[in-house]
Amino acid sequence: MPVSERFEKQLQFLIEVDKMKTIFRQTLLTDRSRRENDAEHSWHFALMAMLLYEYADPEKVNLTRVMKMALVHDLIEIYAGDTFAYDEKGNESKEKREHAAAQKLFTMLPKDQGQEIWSLWQEFEQMETADAQYAAALDRLQPFINNYVTQGHTWKLGNVTSDKVYQRMDAVRLGAPALWSFVEDTVRQSIEKGYLEK
Amino acid sequence: MPVSERFEKQLQFLIEVDKMKTIFRQTLLTDRSRRENDAEHSWHFALMAMLLYEYADPEKVNLTRVMKMALVHDLIEIYAGDTFAYDEKGNESKEKREHAAAQKLFTMLPKDQGQEIWSLWQEFEQMETADAQYAAALDRLQPFINNYVTQGHTWKLGNVTSDKVYQRMDAVRLGAPALWSFVEDTVRQSIEKGYLEK
Repeated sequence: MPVSERFEKQLQFLIEVDKMKTIFRQTLLTDRSRRENDAEHSWHFALMAMLLYEYADPEKVNLTRVMKMALVHDLIEIYAGDTFAYDEKGNESKEKREHAAAQKLFTMLPKDQGQEIWSLWQEFEQMETADAQYAAALDRLQPFINNYVTQGHTWKLGNVTSDKVYQRMDAVRLGAPALWSFVEDTVRQSIEKGYLEK
Repeated sequence: MPVSERFEKQLQFLIEVDKMKTIFRQTLLTDRSRRENDAEHSWHFALMAMLLYEYADPEKVNLTRVMKMALVHDLIEIYAGDTFAYDEKGNESKEKREHAAAQKLFTMLPKDQGQEIWSLWQEFEQMETADAQYAAALDRLQPFINNYVTQGHTWKLGNVTSDKVYQRMDAVRLGAPALWSFVEDTVRQSIEKGYLEK
């Protein structure tokens, strides 16, 4: 079947990551029919990177790298599971679980590619570069929009108050500042409509 | 809620395309638990673009454009539905249905972005540029791999014979020729294993 040992590794990795379609997040689809999975979230995030690029600083942000980050940023959840953003306990053990997952998953690939993905994922998590900051803004905006459309489903689930949401969404202020007023307006409306506790 | 009229259009579009998560294809997930949807397929395709880029001609193929094509190539199915690759009748009316869908969906966006997506989608469909040919190769390879892993599920469903599969997979010979021997080997093995009729 394989054309080379290198391709065989890539192929097995591409088959393994099909599992992203079975890792469910807390966010609902906009039609509220079910929870969203990681593959769907990653697609939506990458598409947003493309369509909202004008709100990033084009001199600093490389769209190609951000799209790559979107595609790979949640792969480790195949083994580490999705950690609910507002689950403080879960987030304490997150780093350790995710590092072990990266070790298991990324080493399936040829070394150069495993390292590329590992470093893109780490860069994303650290939120220090302009690419990672724009990526983080989108990663937060995607469920934020779905949450608003589904009348605050995830916020209600986690008994979340607006200060926690602002804390989580701070990535937008940093990575796509032109969209910060949208966040503020949406939080305000969500409180008014009873989607979110003040 | 919106920061500008332009953003309001982008936002409504990004909410509308959430429907990609509810458009189901014939392909099964590798765990055979259910059919795959368009958002999942598009994510997998974009990730493959990134990881198999070495099998394209890097002097001719622009990875950024191919990832964009992957993200948008099936959007029109939100209104036009998924047409099964081996459904000859469905494919007769496909073009007309898809054009109407593009008209409805892409005009939700600011004009420049609607035009960009429309032209990426058209370029993909026409399979004439190097970018579109590499993209088409991946669009065929993704379900091909899942089909093999799920013991020929879709091929059996459509009573497909190997000549039809070769016809459909010809895009790989064109857009990622280094992977053609993988296609041939996999078809051969699929026939041997009874996943596919000769």
